[in-house]
Amino acid sequence: MGPNLIFSVIYKTIFSWSMKRAHIISIGNELLIGDTVNTNASWIGRFLTEKGFRVDEVLTISDNYESIVASVKWSLEHADLVITTGGLGPTHDDITKKAVADIFDSRMITDEDILAHIKKMFALRGFTFSESNREQAMIPEGCDVLFNNRGTAPGMWFQKNGSFLAVLPGIPNEMKFLMEKRVSEKIDTQFQETGFRAVKYLKTAGVTESSLSDDYIGNLSHFIDNDFEIAYLPNPGGVTIRIACQEKTEEDSDLKISELENYIREKAGSVIYGEGRDFTLSEALGNLLKCRNYTLAAAESCTGGYLSNEITNVSGCSNYMKGGITAYSNEIKAGHLKVSESEIEKYGAVSKQVALAMAYGISEKFGSDIGVSTTGIAGPGGGSPEKPVGTVWMGFRILDQHFAMKAILTKDRLLNKERSSIIVLETIRRVLLNIEPMPYNLKQERA
Amino acid sequence: MGPNLIFSVIYKTIFSWSMKRAHIISIGNELLIGDTVNTNASWIGRFLTEKGFRVDEVLTISDNYESIVASVKWSLEHADLVITTGGLGPTHDDITKKAVADIFDSRMITDEDILAHIKKMFALRGFTFSESNREQAMIPEGCDVLFNNRGTAPGMWFQKNGSFLAVLPGIPNEMKFLMEKRVSEKIDTQFQETGFRAVKYLKTAGVTESSLSDDYIGNLSHFIDNDFEIAYLPNPGGVTIRIACQEKTEEDSDLKISELENYIREKAGSVIYGEGRDFTLSEALGNLLKCRNYTLAAAESCTGGYLSNEITNVSGCSNYMKGGITAYSNEIKAGHLKVSESEIEKYGAVSKQVALAMAYGISEKFGSDIGVSTTGIAGPGGGSPEKPVGTVWMGFRILDQHFAMKAILTKDRLLNKERSSIIVLETIRRVLLNIEPMPYNLKQERA
Repeated sequence: MGPNLIFSVIYKTIFSWSMKRAHIISIGNELLIGDTVNTNASWIGRFLTEKGFRVDEVLTISDNYESIVASVKWSLEHADLVITTGGLGPTHDDITKKAVADIFDSRMITDEDILAHIKKMFALRGFTFSESNREQAMIPEGCDVLFNNRGTAPGMWFQKNGSFLAVLPGIPNEMKFLMEKRVSEKIDTQFQETGFRAVKYLKTAGVTESSLSDDYIGNLSHFIDNDFEIAYLPNPGGVTIRIACQEKTEEDSDLKISELENYIREKAGSVIYGEGRDFTLSEALGNLLKCRNYTLAAAESCTGGYLSNEITNVSGCSNYMKGGITAYSNEIKAGHLKVSESEIEKYGAVSKQVALAMAYGISEKFGSDIGVSTTGIAGPGGGSPEKPVGTVWMGFRILDQHFAMKAILTKDRLLNKERSSIIVLETIRRVLLNIEPMPYNLKQERA
Repeated sequence: MGPNLIFSVIYKTIFSWSMKRAHIISIGNELLIGDTVNTNASWIGRFLTEKGFRVDEVLTISDNYESIVASVKWSLEHADLVITTGGLGPTHDDITKKAVADIFDSRMITDEDILAHIKKMFALRGFTFSESNREQAMIPEGCDVLFNNRGTAPGMWFQKNGSFLAVLPGIPNEMKFLMEKRVSEKIDTQFQETGFRAVKYLKTAGVTESSLSDDYIGNLSHFIDNDFEIAYLPNPGGVTIRIACQEKTEEDSDLKISELENYIREKAGSVIYGEGRDFTLSEALGNLLKCRNYTLAAAESCTGGYLSNEITNVSGCSNYMKGGITAYSNEIKAGHLKVSESEIEKYGAVSKQVALAMAYGISEKFGSDIGVSTTGIAGPGGGSPEKPVGTVWMGFRILDQHFAMKAILTKDRLLNKERSSIIVLETIRRVLLNIEPMPYNLKQERA
């Protein structure tokens, strides 16, 4: 059973529950004309899904009074919870507040707490408070204020015929703050009966979606029949396994999810480098290096700094990252990494020999336990019949092991940098943990 | 007049034209639960806007028969052009084709050309063609096939009461292929009267949105009154100015847009590094270095490879990029960049002296005309009252000039790496072109 089929079965299952329904309404011309990608809606969609809601609709409309009134009214009739974002700014094209006030037949009143907060923010930033800013402190009478510590536009919470409406600003960090600190609590109070949802993200690298499903994990229909939700989410860095379930109490859902988690870890534990939606392979490797007290250095040609940048994205990496050399030209490879010029001439810069020499050279030069290297044809130009665009040699000196691997990747320069870096990081992790080599079509050759 | 106000005036203006209206319907559960960000909708939104359409609505719904039928019917009544994406795969949760066939009261027939194409694709990839794959070659009778050379799901084009419907797969590269190669032509034939739209993206760096608008460009109401569209689009790399206009012929719109472009370039030419939506500062600097025949090398501490990676994202950069050293530890700074240990001890690694020494060291070591460096506290930990998180010193040796700059950036590690790199790239560009220094709150000190 492939992932697509699993996916469809899951949805048939979860959609048959009596879930609370949610709608998201995104307001803003910049979203319609494509200048801004609607990341707010996907963030809220995930947030509400994890809270046990079924998101039926995301609607994006312009800052148009009639559209806002019609859409919010319609959604309040068809969903239990409606979230709007956008259109709360101080300029006259921001009309969400007026539209919502009219839906609830409310007059606008000044909220003194918000007014004081706005005046304080202006003073802190050294801006002059003008009378038009006073409007930001006005809210429709009768709504609950969702106090916005991060900005000047307050969020608002309304109730109508058993449905609830949250009106939030469109600036992502303000919206997220209000969802996490204000709306979340309102939801927990009003929708207690939705139960507790447990969600886990198990992160893998170096294995394809179909191999992960077919070769490692296998048939999960027993779990799916028991109301577990399972999704394989592929991305350039690897495949994330998202598992979820919902029970009456938090203890029950935690207990239930651990049953599936343990099963998956038993089957695919070797390729799971960690958990958490935003946990990265660099972090996993960093923890391992810190724990083993090993240091690392990188000599990069085709990845051009990508690999070092990934490693140094982790806070605290100075404990294990000695540094690196971006050796873009052959003279740097020869002069600073001690790759012999005759080898470069004989085998070419993109070769096993040069990759091995670079890895050895950087670990010697920087005095690190581990030295890695990349040399390849990132593209789009520069390929040949013997070494097409996407050919990458990666060299490793890991303690007493010394080997090189070859991969034929894509025609895309940026993707090739990213993929090479992931192969390097995952290979170090697997060697240190004695895990089977990566199931890519890679040629692994020992020196 | 601030950017927000300009924005609103623009929209008031363009929305008063008698434009053709478009709706986009995105179909897929993965979009609603937030596992996938809806980049398709923003891509199509921009495409249609550039074709002279006004996009009134983007609706995201699940793979649900009733939702699809109701939404497509509603949109066909309220828009001149409707684009759907998603739900055309081979598994049984993909029901868009069935829903659309029922809207048009069409029976499903097999298209022999598509069938042959699918069989050929399967053979090429070495997959077995099964009977369930035959369904992919079935289409509603009476539609125009939008032949999909990139995949197995055909696109479809329908007409109803003067409105048009394009049904496309959700896989981004297939959707884009069909929009560019099939739908575009259909639109040009059916909507000739929309005229020709000219759009330009002028890219700036090192200047804030408000400074660009107030200090450089100033009041543009004369242009706005003449049906020009102007938007300031800020992002971490700088502010993009998008200008657009629409005329009966291509020549007229090109002529008209150049009037505004020339005006803006006269006012803000020094901070515009290039044009084109995806043109980067690294490309602009690369072109300049290639043209002047200068070479570059980078010594990175706090940016940890980000800067080298940005520079090497440009194809052909080996013409000017010698390489770099990521000097994460003090011993690398001392041992490989010839920064004196006494200076590091006396002033600290994050100091003007060390930044200057690193820039000089890397240009000497790699034999480059230009050497740059970064050393700072990227965060989130490691700050002190004198040197808070976000403190970054950048060193420059540009031909015979040698100076350092200090910036106090953010608390966010990744953002600090990105911003430091942009400041370095833009500073080199400005020095080489004799442009005024950057209007950041930066301390610039000559050695």
